[in-house]
Amino acid sequence: MNKNRLEAFSDGVLAIVITIMVLELHVPAEPTWPALLHELPTFLSYVLSFVYVGIYWNNHHHMLHLAGRINGGVLWANLHLLFWLSLFPFTTRWINDAGLAQVPVLVYGLNLLLAAIAYYILKLALIRQQGRGGALEEAMGRDWKGKGSPALYIAGMALTFVNPILGIATYAAVAALWLIPDRRVERFLAHA
Amino acid sequence: MNKNRLEAFSDGVLAIVITIMVLELHVPAEPTWPALLHELPTFLSYVLSFVYVGIYWNNHHHMLHLAGRINGGVLWANLHLLFWLSLFPFTTRWINDAGLAQVPVLVYGLNLLLAAIAYYILKLALIRQQGRGGALEEAMGRDWKGKGSPALYIAGMALTFVNPILGIATYAAVAALWLIPDRRVERFLAHA
Amino acid sequence: MNKNRLEAFSDGVLAIVITIMVLELHVPAEPTWPALLHELPTFLSYVLSFVYVGIYWNNHHHMLHLAGRINGGVLWANLHLLFWLSLFPFTTRWINDAGLAQVPVLVYGLNLLLAAIAYYILKLALIRQQGRGGALEEAMGRDWKGKGSPALYIAGMALTFVNPILGIATYAAVAALWLIPDRRVERFLAHA
Amino acid sequence: MNKNRLEAFSDGVLAIVITIMVLELHVPAEPTWPALLHELPTFLSYVLSFVYVGIYWNNHHHMLHLAGRINGGVLWANLHLLFWLSLFPFTTRWINDAGLAQVPVLVYGLNLLLAAIAYYILKLALIRQQGRGGALEEAMGRDWKGKGSPALYIAGMALTFVNPILGIATYAAVAALWLIPDRRVERFLAHA
Repeated sequence: MNKNRLEAFSDGVLAIVITIMVLELHVPAEPTWPALLHELPTFLSYVLSFVYVGIYWNNHHHMLHLAGRINGGVLWANLHLLFWLSLFPFTTRWINDAGLAQVPVLVYGLNLLLAAIAYYILKLALIRQQGRGGALEEAMGRDWKGKGSPALYIAGMALTFVNPILGIATYAAVAALWLIPDRRVERFLAHA
Repeated sequence: MNKNRLEAFSDGVLAIVITIMVLELHVPAEPTWPALLHELPTFLSYVLSFVYVGIYWNNHHHMLHLAGRINGGVLWANLHLLFWLSLFPFTTRWINDAGLAQVPVLVYGLNLLLAAIAYYILKLALIRQQGRGGALEEAMGRDWKGKGSPALYIAGMALTFVNPILGIATYAAVAALWLIPDRRVERFLAHA
Repeated sequence: MNKNRLEAFSDGVLAIVITIMVLELHVPAEPTWPALLHELPTFLSYVLSFVYVGIYWNNHHHMLHLAGRINGGVLWANLHLLFWLSLFPFTTRWINDAGLAQVPVLVYGLNLLLAAIAYYILKLALIRQQGRGGALEEAMGRDWKGKGSPALYIAGMALTFVNPILGIATYAAVAALWLIPDRRVERFLAHA
Repeated sequence: MNKNRLEAFSDGVLAIVITIMVLELHVPAEPTWPALLHELPTFLSYVLSFVYVGIYWNNHHHMLHLAGRINGGVLWANLHLLFWLSLFPFTTRWINDAGLAQVPVLVYGLNLLLAAIAYYILKLALIRQQGRGGALEEAMGRDWKGKGSPALYIAGMALTFVNPILGIATYAAVAALWLIPDRRVERFLAHA
């Protein structure tokens, strides 16, 4: 089984997830700047979720690029990841509707955490399928971002008990960390 | 006519079906854990439908992989399957809105049954196009899951008359059966 | 410029059009069979629009298969077709909300007519790009279905002034006509 | 890293953006022609946004066609462009709901402006990746449309202070400018 259709299906799901979130944006109650400004927190949570889906698409793209043939376990590990990513429009909407309340911000962090774990499981399934010492294991070996993110999501969730804004700020900081270009995989590919 | 565009279109429809179901999830009425817990049955029916669409995508992927060229009959058999799968967001929404009532659970079972029949018709159309003794017929010959599922859906519908929860539990059990890896096609491919 | 990305984009739009129509289906007001039956006309108009998008995808698939390189004119003729097809969810919804009233049924017929004209323009653009005597012109030359459909849509619109149900029945009859396999293109391809 | 998956993902997002806008179209309040006519401004803003997404898809298609391998910077520049394009359904909906009021028309113009800037950044990223004197720089060098459009969007925003209809008319005029076939890239490709 080749990986092209897996990539195409994942691209489709991620493209839809990233795009339908716009349907959740509230149109301002009045055609005025203050009314638009009032929707700013909603807009920022949209930006955050957009960036996260973009990061996952980007990383998924790189990881699959190094993978070889795939099997049933990889297919389901991939669907498991897509499941948690497909919940972003829902958890984002709850934050917006409830106005940055504690429980929705915790649930958003949980969503990020479960997506990160699902990504890790997919990575293990791909490495196992490729065999030890393959291109994937070598390139992904010292993946400190992947290992550190779950700890930071938990820290963000803990900070939410102090103030939900601190939680969101932590999630945003993790996203910023991922936006810094990661030269590892690309360098590896350049040398391959 | 080659099968790539058929696969791409089916991937697109299935990716959308699996993703727009999230638009049906109700945001909890209050930003509290009990309010979230109250949405748990809705969430579980979302999970069940997500898993079913995932199973269909997975099986469709395998089946088309073994298929050769396709004709008009296959195109329409495929659209017929996509039609029933496209109704999942609707039947899932009805279960959620009506709170596990008898008729919506029966209709959900009917939807599963009609999708299974449409899948079977597609399989026959593909085997007929490929000719007897082809790779598809050999790999799919002893398809006890495909043959047993309709009977189990009907059993689930019958149990719904006792209690809708028994119906849903039966549908979930059939999904679990499909999640157990089916080595037949993969073993066949490995030997091919 | 090659045609792969045009096909991929068209597949994407058609897959979304055919799938988001399910979001317009009303959940029955009560979890009972009569309430479901009450939504039957809505369901049938969903089926009709699904079949029409399927027919367009199918025909588009065949026509592009015979096309060679594409130019800017073809790109815009294709977007023009996608525009009218993208309105199906809107015109279908109006029929459902207004309950088979005269004006919405006329507008639905107008939508079918404009899509058929857009398809014809796309065909001309492709034939012009390929040059006279190409595979497309030969295969599409005696396209009596394509030429007859607009006349039948207009007849259906006229009958709507008698009774909207006659209009819908005419549109459904045209769809049935297209479902009868058209061996021309396939035979041509088989001999090519 | 090759560009196929970037194109596929962008196609997916643009196909969804262009299609879900139809969900924002209001069904006329009554099944009559005057009620339909009352929705005409909404329909025209739908047409304008549809045409703009089509123009971006078209131009994106051409630009990527000339690009070679892509890197992380290009991936993010592309996501940045998709972000602004994904807001079209939102800004279009605001114009419709608020009935051509000043602020929504200004925000729509801002959306057009930011998308144009994002497109320009993507072009620079692609040229930088390809190196000076590459096919992209040569073909895109005298891109007077790309350079002039932002100025025209700002002019349209300024005219909105006089009358929002003048603003919309200016945005529509820029779209018309882009619809006039641009032979440069195609001529270049024909000679390549």
